[in-house]
Amino acid sequence: MSGDTFRSVTVIRVRDGVQSPDADRAATEEPLEVRLHGRPFAVIMRTPGADRELAAGFLLAEGVLTGADDLGTIAHCTDPSAEHPDNIVDVTLTGGSPEAIERWLAGRRQVTTTSSCGLCGRQTIDSLRSDRPPLTSAWDVAPAMLASLPEALRASQSVFDETGGLHAAGLFAADGRLEDVAEDVGRHNAVDKVIGRAIMRDALPLSDRLLFVSGRTSFEIVQKAFVAGIPIVAAVSAPSSLAIELAGEAGITLVGFVRGRGFNIYTHPSRLRSA
Amino acid sequence: MSGDTFRSVTVIRVRDGVQSPDADRAATEEPLEVRLHGRPFAVIMRTPGADRELAAGFLLAEGVLTGADDLGTIAHCTDPSAEHPDNIVDVTLTGGSPEAIERWLAGRRQVTTTSSCGLCGRQTIDSLRSDRPPLTSAWDVAPAMLASLPEALRASQSVFDETGGLHAAGLFAADGRLEDVAEDVGRHNAVDKVIGRAIMRDALPLSDRLLFVSGRTSFEIVQKAFVAGIPIVAAVSAPSSLAIELAGEAGITLVGFVRGRGFNIYTHPSRLRSA
Repeated sequence: MSGDTFRSVTVIRVRDGVQSPDADRAATEEPLEVRLHGRPFAVIMRTPGADRELAAGFLLAEGVLTGADDLGTIAHCTDPSAEHPDNIVDVTLTGGSPEAIERWLAGRRQVTTTSSCGLCGRQTIDSLRSDRPPLTSAWDVAPAMLASLPEALRASQSVFDETGGLHAAGLFAADGRLEDVAEDVGRHNAVDKVIGRAIMRDALPLSDRLLFVSGRTSFEIVQKAFVAGIPIVAAVSAPSSLAIELAGEAGITLVGFVRGRGFNIYTHPSRLRSA
Repeated sequence: MSGDTFRSVTVIRVRDGVQSPDADRAATEEPLEVRLHGRPFAVIMRTPGADRELAAGFLLAEGVLTGADDLGTIAHCTDPSAEHPDNIVDVTLTGGSPEAIERWLAGRRQVTTTSSCGLCGRQTIDSLRSDRPPLTSAWDVAPAMLASLPEALRASQSVFDETGGLHAAGLFAADGRLEDVAEDVGRHNAVDKVIGRAIMRDALPLSDRLLFVSGRTSFEIVQKAFVAGIPIVAAVSAPSSLAIELAGEAGITLVGFVRGRGFNIYTHPSRLRSA
């Protein structure tokens, strides 16, 4: 983690009514502009660090990338007129013709304004359904391995203890070994960062990996795991209804409330070994 | 809270390695499409309930509304061809000429793709800076009032106890009285809902109110409070660096880690009475 991951701030601590000034640290939040072939594609509020990985993971979830082969170059901005080049990542696609790039930029605009026009929830899920088959990886994990995840993730989090302000996402092997971890003010970003790093080492699909997140599980977290091919998603807190629905359709084993002595299995329990 | 706020799900509980099937509830997450004069403006993943309020609060934060006077009609979709009319809210603006609506729709596209093009963070904050003066409301609150907020919010949360999956936002008067509360899978949505309800009763600016949120404070939470005129924002968890920066510039008193015996003041401590 770079020093950019947190900022020094001054704070007045109030304890039992007594005020005392103190130095503290806050998790850094700044906008990252993702450009496609030099043109603005999206702005993401994020914690600096692993910016290229974040951009790669984000573009995978958006469908712009399908894997490492689509990635031409990915680098921070070198435009001398940019005031904050550290907050800009420019991505080029292999086979990225001007027409193809134009379609992606136009598609992005459409996603924002009309992604579920007239159909709403159904269309969001239907479009995933028709795009890709459910995950079928058949390996399983032991309950004790799942129970070990919160401590393994916490031990690897360098910044959380400093600020209490970051979400974490960890990529784990079947034996419980932590392969990668990322932290961010945005929980979606932490997931994009670990998946993006896997893209950049050409490791997709992540069929033999488990994703563990420090917070709740939303639709988007499960969707990101789905496109990366991750068959088991576990979390410290609760899943939403749509996260459960999508996990069911996507063939993903969704586990929540991984704490202390147990956890809850919401979908596809066959990947959890019985005791 | 309607029954739509949560869904019945089946779950396998694993405790000390023993599996047992059980019925459980998950917080509902579904997309809401916000239309301006019948045309798609944005899609928000949210927990159903207070949809019109969510749309009003969201449009205030986006700058489309400045208050109740701008609001013509706001209603769920009545289009007989819509498959899920409950997931669509259509908004008309008073004085919403076709040209003005066109500008908003075009502006929305621009926000997504170029909001910080070439300038990144600076431009985001600069645009707020230039738009509106800092808040100057001079009232203050007692430390004991702040300390009472977590319990007051928790007592009013009907769904959190059911699912463990919702964020909450509460609007409080200076004496600690809870005026309104909203819950949502998205913490930004919970804030939009309480502010949106205030718009619809024509109560803006909320200069004598305090906003309390159950989680962390990001840039966007502070921005939403700023446009609604709320001078004190407090939270159970940590603020991000940009939340602190914006609160400092916006004249907002930002308080974090409101727990047990104390809290931390990040900006504008003059609104906290000394013990």
